[in-house]
Amino acid sequence: MIDKELTTRFEAYLKDLMGKNDNSVYDAMNYSLSAGGKRIRPYLAMLACRALGGKAEDVFPFATAIEMVHTYSLIHDDLPAMDNDDLRRGKPTSHKVYGEAMAILAGDALLTEAFSVIAESDLSADKKIRAAGALSKRAGAKGMVLGQALDMKGSESLDGLLLMYERKTSDLLAAALSMGAIAAGGKGDEFDTFAKYTGIAFQVMDDILDVTSSEEKLGKNINSDGKNDKITSLSFMTMEDAKNMLEDYTARAVDSLAFLGDKDKELKELAYFLMKRDY
Amino acid sequence: MIDKELTTRFEAYLKDLMGKNDNSVYDAMNYSLSAGGKRIRPYLAMLACRALGGKAEDVFPFATAIEMVHTYSLIHDDLPAMDNDDLRRGKPTSHKVYGEAMAILAGDALLTEAFSVIAESDLSADKKIRAAGALSKRAGAKGMVLGQALDMKGSESLDGLLLMYERKTSDLLAAALSMGAIAAGGKGDEFDTFAKYTGIAFQVMDDILDVTSSEEKLGKNINSDGKNDKITSLSFMTMEDAKNMLEDYTARAVDSLAFLGDKDKELKELAYFLMKRDY
Repeated sequence: MIDKELTTRFEAYLKDLMGKNDNSVYDAMNYSLSAGGKRIRPYLAMLACRALGGKAEDVFPFATAIEMVHTYSLIHDDLPAMDNDDLRRGKPTSHKVYGEAMAILAGDALLTEAFSVIAESDLSADKKIRAAGALSKRAGAKGMVLGQALDMKGSESLDGLLLMYERKTSDLLAAALSMGAIAAGGKGDEFDTFAKYTGIAFQVMDDILDVTSSEEKLGKNINSDGKNDKITSLSFMTMEDAKNMLEDYTARAVDSLAFLGDKDKELKELAYFLMKRDY
Repeated sequence: MIDKELTTRFEAYLKDLMGKNDNSVYDAMNYSLSAGGKRIRPYLAMLACRALGGKAEDVFPFATAIEMVHTYSLIHDDLPAMDNDDLRRGKPTSHKVYGEAMAILAGDALLTEAFSVIAESDLSADKKIRAAGALSKRAGAKGMVLGQALDMKGSESLDGLLLMYERKTSDLLAAALSMGAIAAGGKGDEFDTFAKYTGIAFQVMDDILDVTSSEEKLGKNINSDGKNDKITSLSFMTMEDAKNMLEDYTARAVDSLAFLGDKDKELKELAYFLMKRDY
């Protein structure tokens, strides 16, 4: 389902790029960046680029930037003042290994360096600044950061919760897809609907997995939502309704790819893959 | 000494730009952004732009971006896990007003939005991506964030301390001047030496003021360095040596402006002004 050859090449690119630097901040950045994430956002950028006729390699710098932003958001979300998680992807979280101050700084550095990677890449100035704009808009105070703020506040309705999911998750998927589209010469908003529904479905799937999966498969503490009295989609819906919603949103995401004609295969497969993950 | 008419216009621009947005994250961003900073970095960007023949207004978006990055760094530096300060510019720090989680997010959002402001400005794509590159390079894991990490670790020698000051302060001044130069059509590295010496001098002045100034003038707790057993330049030098060093570094900064000919006046005046501030 995932093009392993492509993701292997991306891992090598990322490792090479990050290995060129050496200081205490990079150590902490690399710890989290190489902690075995699924690289879904970079992969989305590559697929979007390919679907619009570009080459996946062209978007490697943008894909790196999006993974850096995603990783920073995980480091900061895990902090004691936020979700206070000590396990992530099966490993101790950044602040558990490096202390809280360095975890904050590692996150700050990843967010900042994302824009350096974009700026220093070989694409045209026009593509680079549009990619930087798409990333900052979706990751910032109207996007992902707002989503995290809404998450801290808690949601009192399903609509409020889904809006939070859209900001917290869909927006960064949208940035990934947008940067892929821009690298291929597209406008950048081609995949916004796909991102919206895939992101919300992804979060609802997380809610389901938190109840049904095992700690070993998930690589983090299970039932953490229940233990923290956290509001999830299952606070407002039965498990069956949640699973139906997941299917419905995935169908909407897939339908939004119609404009691609027969170029929709890879993104469609990824959407179904994300919906069926059981780890 | 400071062109009040110019800075007043910048304040109006900044207020107008930020006032267009309204949510809980923007509230916290605006609290710190409007807390009465001296706008030295934006002003440096304007003066660099003017010195190279550009118009100060052209650099307002870049000047906004640099002030956002500076403000984010203050919010995160003040956090309990970092310097644990509860007073900044005479007002309670962000985490005292909004809580730790929102302070982290407000900082993250300011850093992210800085790049949105650059991307959405009216300058050419080439100038915008070069400005974004200069800012991210100087603010990131080889620049300001590294400086903060070195600061947390502490310095065992004067050389180590001055290197930390250069990363923590000079680098962001360099970004401001670089962005001003780029807006005017320059290369961007014209003021690197000026930034280096001004930044270190600025920090040494802070060390001196922490001992000699009053809380009222400074707008933050005085002798906080001494109370925290913090290592400063005065841990390695007498007060007289520190003051001599300040004069020496200011002279080196001013000398580096020789290439400007008679266009050096405003930046020279600002360097002397910074050295003489007694608040």
